[in-house]
Amino acid sequence: MSELLNSVNTPEDLKLLKREELPRLAEEMRAFIIDSVAGKTGGHLGSGLGAVELAIALHYYYRLGDHDSVVWDVGHQCYPHKLLTGRRSQFESLRQYKGISGFPDPKESCFDKVKTGHGGTSLSTALGVAIANKTQGFLDRTSIAVIGDGALQEGQALEALNHGGDLRDLKFLIVLNDNEHGIGPATGALANYFSKFRTSHAYTSAKKDVKKMLKVLEDQAGGLGRAIHDVLDHVKAGLHGLMPATHPGVLFEELGYFYYGPIDGHNTDQLLEAFENSARVPKPVVLHVLTRKGKGFQDDVPDHYAYHAAKTHSKLTAHLPKEYARAGGPSYTDVFVDKTTELMKKDQKVIAITAAMLQGTGLEIVQKTFPDRVYDVGMAEQHAVGFAQGLRLGGLKPICAIYSTFMQRSVDQLFQELALIKCPVLLALDRAGLVGPDGATHNGVFDIAYLSMLPNVVLMAPRDATEMKNMMEWGLELAMPAAIRFPRASSPKVELPTKQPLELGKAEILREGDDGVVIAYGSMVYHALEAIEKIEERHGKRLTLVNARFAKPFDEQLFATLIEKHNHVFTVEEHVRRGGFGSSVLEFANRARLEAGKLEVLAIDDRFVDHGARVEVLQEVGLDPEGIAASIERRLGLRRASGETSRRSVATGSVTG
Amino acid sequence: MSELLNSVNTPEDLKLLKREELPRLAEEMRAFIIDSVAGKTGGHLGSGLGAVELAIALHYYYRLGDHDSVVWDVGHQCYPHKLLTGRRSQFESLRQYKGISGFPDPKESCFDKVKTGHGGTSLSTALGVAIANKTQGFLDRTSIAVIGDGALQEGQALEALNHGGDLRDLKFLIVLNDNEHGIGPATGALANYFSKFRTSHAYTSAKKDVKKMLKVLEDQAGGLGRAIHDVLDHVKAGLHGLMPATHPGVLFEELGYFYYGPIDGHNTDQLLEAFENSARVPKPVVLHVLTRKGKGFQDDVPDHYAYHAAKTHSKLTAHLPKEYARAGGPSYTDVFVDKTTELMKKDQKVIAITAAMLQGTGLEIVQKTFPDRVYDVGMAEQHAVGFAQGLRLGGLKPICAIYSTFMQRSVDQLFQELALIKCPVLLALDRAGLVGPDGATHNGVFDIAYLSMLPNVVLMAPRDATEMKNMMEWGLELAMPAAIRFPRASSPKVELPTKQPLELGKAEILREGDDGVVIAYGSMVYHALEAIEKIEERHGKRLTLVNARFAKPFDEQLFATLIEKHNHVFTVEEHVRRGGFGSSVLEFANRARLEAGKLEVLAIDDRFVDHGARVEVLQEVGLDPEGIAASIERRLGLRRASGETSRRSVATGSVTG
Repeated sequence: MSELLNSVNTPEDLKLLKREELPRLAEEMRAFIIDSVAGKTGGHLGSGLGAVELAIALHYYYRLGDHDSVVWDVGHQCYPHKLLTGRRSQFESLRQYKGISGFPDPKESCFDKVKTGHGGTSLSTALGVAIANKTQGFLDRTSIAVIGDGALQEGQALEALNHGGDLRDLKFLIVLNDNEHGIGPATGALANYFSKFRTSHAYTSAKKDVKKMLKVLEDQAGGLGRAIHDVLDHVKAGLHGLMPATHPGVLFEELGYFYYGPIDGHNTDQLLEAFENSARVPKPVVLHVLTRKGKGFQDDVPDHYAYHAAKTHSKLTAHLPKEYARAGGPSYTDVFVDKTTELMKKDQKVIAITAAMLQGTGLEIVQKTFPDRVYDVGMAEQHAVGFAQGLRLGGLKPICAIYSTFMQRSVDQLFQELALIKCPVLLALDRAGLVGPDGATHNGVFDIAYLSMLPNVVLMAPRDATEMKNMMEWGLELAMPAAIRFPRASSPKVELPTKQPLELGKAEILREGDDGVVIAYGSMVYHALEAIEKIEERHGKRLTLVNARFAKPFDEQLFATLIEKHNHVFTVEEHVRRGGFGSSVLEFANRARLEAGKLEVLAIDDRFVDHGARVEVLQEVGLDPEGIAASIERRLGLRRASGETSRRSVATGSVTG
Repeated sequence: MSELLNSVNTPEDLKLLKREELPRLAEEMRAFIIDSVAGKTGGHLGSGLGAVELAIALHYYYRLGDHDSVVWDVGHQCYPHKLLTGRRSQFESLRQYKGISGFPDPKESCFDKVKTGHGGTSLSTALGVAIANKTQGFLDRTSIAVIGDGALQEGQALEALNHGGDLRDLKFLIVLNDNEHGIGPATGALANYFSKFRTSHAYTSAKKDVKKMLKVLEDQAGGLGRAIHDVLDHVKAGLHGLMPATHPGVLFEELGYFYYGPIDGHNTDQLLEAFENSARVPKPVVLHVLTRKGKGFQDDVPDHYAYHAAKTHSKLTAHLPKEYARAGGPSYTDVFVDKTTELMKKDQKVIAITAAMLQGTGLEIVQKTFPDRVYDVGMAEQHAVGFAQGLRLGGLKPICAIYSTFMQRSVDQLFQELALIKCPVLLALDRAGLVGPDGATHNGVFDIAYLSMLPNVVLMAPRDATEMKNMMEWGLELAMPAAIRFPRASSPKVELPTKQPLELGKAEILREGDDGVVIAYGSMVYHALEAIEKIEERHGKRLTLVNARFAKPFDEQLFATLIEKHNHVFTVEEHVRRGGFGSSVLEFANRARLEAGKLEVLAIDDRFVDHGARVEVLQEVGLDPEGIAASIERRLGLRRASGETSRRSVATGSVTG
């Protein structure tokens, strides 16, 4: 079945195949990916299956790597590209600890120029490469971006589109991979715009016209340069009358692009022909290809999300221990869904927003009950936060749910739209902490830093489902912006009883002991609890455990008392050390002239953490219960400083990039 | 001359005027603004003069405030709006310390719903308000955004445009204030697109067609609702044949908007008629108005930038002391220009990028020498950083110059496009620190926090012009991303000699003494020098002065030695305390088990700092030489803790928002 694929390890091998063999290769690749991803490793199945022919045609026609270059936007669609660039034998390790990444990664291959995961960036990068080529006189090199219709909604992509349309004499090719949806079905005007042409006769009609136009162009144009450009404009002006009043390309043509398509993105002949024709156009080209996400996999099942990501097969993770002993409750995302639904039932003013994360945040479920009060603004995090501000100014109570890592897109809006005018919006930062298989681009480990630097914000993190619900209810009534961070993990199955009602900036003492204090933030509370239970069991030492609840403002009074009373105070957080929760406590201790030397901050070191199961990566950075216990034991002199630390030396030894 | 204006203190007063009196009011307002801004206070003259009739018409037609609402994008254009909403008598204090702001500000007036300054946000906010109105059944309220053609290039604005075009049955009006340029002449495809129609006959022709269309619409439509929408589409389809092949509105219509215009934005009758007609359209409307930036002021001088901002008249600042005694050298921006030019002369691979800050960053001057190697990507900070990455991947050496405050837009690109793959781009963060008259939205006081949280970045700040040049030359050759922050200020006139060559992560000892250490970062070095000179003079105490040079990685070895040796170590930075340079040093001291209690961090407290002259706001936050000296003296016991601190209590007393 994999005859052809087995012969292709590099793009050079691929170029040895005949054109008519490419469809068969595509079939083999599709089968391989389905077998590997759906059957074994899990991963983002849909995008890759939609881009099989595209990857083949690009590598077949261009000299990607040292000469031409391609940036796969978001990166989910890179699986076929990885197959063609020497990584087939590693596919069984996809997205697994120490295995290959689910995204392009320069560490893996010289065919991956960038590491992606956050969408809408490819046009900027590829435009930069194109300008660099032009500036250096590399006139025969083509710089290509492959972007989905979902990612094209990102502000950065639109900024780049605006910039690129203004430029000439560039070999800059935008392949618009139009599969009708990003992570979920696409929303917004652009999506409507595209879908219009998928269904109407304008598609065929416009295609014919473009073909005609290109024929004329070919006949007229001997070489590159200004002349051909003028001819082109002339021809296009003449053809305009023949075109449907609005054809799919108007939008791009108005912006200065040469628009080509739409063509069938699963037909390698059409793709190769399109590349050949585009090569003759001396200005940026938008090549519109129609593909089907998940093509070849359960073609009869119309479930967009199943295509997006297949779950990791359980046997791959069966050998792994639980993240912490008390784990096994509902996921924090599920808790978010339940509580949001409840809040929306109670109060008509509550309204929920996300940015192309309907399924991930669970708001898809809420939307079923409240179709008019859940807004998915598309891949547009900046707008999502500004939109939430407007909803609030208009009298509603917005909950804005965006992953911690994607909220990095909105730092300036958190600054100006929320903090500056103290605008009350409740931010739900899902996937805060280490996310697991998606790795470095998706880890949400910077949010405390980028939020706590801003005045007028409240930052909190729940220890379990009950507290999560309390925080949401309470945070929604605050008179200022508030953020709740929670991990991509299950909440504790058995919860500790609430010792103290929720109060702004107040922590909760969960357990008392005289041998030190552990102040844990959010997702780390039960891990820390397990750590100090281990220590008590092993050494008979009993530590105080504090659930910090707030990172801003935090419980200065309690922390001061604890630092004064105890010799050893540990803070634990699932966040980078720099600018995190522990860092804030250090700043406070210093200002309050407390003995900051008693403090030890347990956090993630200054490096990027790659993919793996959550339990594996937490272990790597020393934030699993055993890792936390080991750090405490070392500090308390219960363990040799260098002893039993083989696991942790891994953590600090490998620095990304 | 100001008869009418004198009678108008509120929008209610305005509504008492007859329509035909409005042009005279406009004239009076224009004269008032020119007199006040160009003649006295300084400020962003051009945008306001272009929006006089717009502000009049909006307040005349709508019930802005409690009923309808308007968001002025960027906010520079809000001066006429301020005049009409009770702030005329305060105009002499515009942008001055404790005076009214140059931007909308909810603290000043209930007619200002938001505080702006960063552009491209108005559509998101106004769309949010529109949806809130709809959700609550306030069907007669209109939510308006006024946005310039420059700000419309911002990713956030384009994201919002995409979202809004998809929605129906909303009273959402986008006034596209097309004045052909943002801060400088606009760049990009959208700008070209607009300018085409300013000059061609299509303008008049399209206008006529739209009028015809609206006439039909009026005749057909009795009330609001779906029906009118269908009629409208029908009519538009019919009219398409009559229109020029591409007319100015195609782009917006393709995105689902009702496009109206272009009309003369200096004609109140046309504006009022347009508002009346727009009110009948049950979907989002783009009203395209043509205005002239700076209208009425030196109409014969074609200098875009003069219109943008008039300088503060010197007599207003004549009474203020120098920022620090040695001040008076070239501005850091000028130094940046000189060195960039030199580097570009030496090395053909050097290329410079900015995002609509050509003049502010000085790259406008560089562009004259190297027109093909300076790229202004428009108001598109996210794209600018991604574009810089692409240029680097393509083999060039990019210098990306963006104000510290606007770089907040690019945090996610700093993360993924630069830090994650350790991509060497030199970032020049101009206006880092307190900017003065532009105030809270423009202060660049968060960059150390949002950059230092990222692995793989080098952060540095020069103490003077010589060091700035060295850092630029050196930073450009680094194998990883590097940022240089520098203030909107003059560099020292008399420089201290360089004691030590530039080396990664190494600080420089400028002066030695036994009574304590001051580690100053960048813009604070000479301020700190002056402070310790004062202390020596007053008390005979001599402190060591260290020029930190780097905030990441910093000189751990030297700092450790100093902390061990001295009882008092001060860090000084022009940045918020949370997550800043001093905070990093505290983290290090804690990790290294040094006595962190010896450290005192002098930085900006957790609040927003408003406008004023730089010397005034530095004084307010205690970062002027005298303020620094006072902090040190208090710590050293040379001054009572509460004594002579009237100035500083101001600083901590007034919290924004």
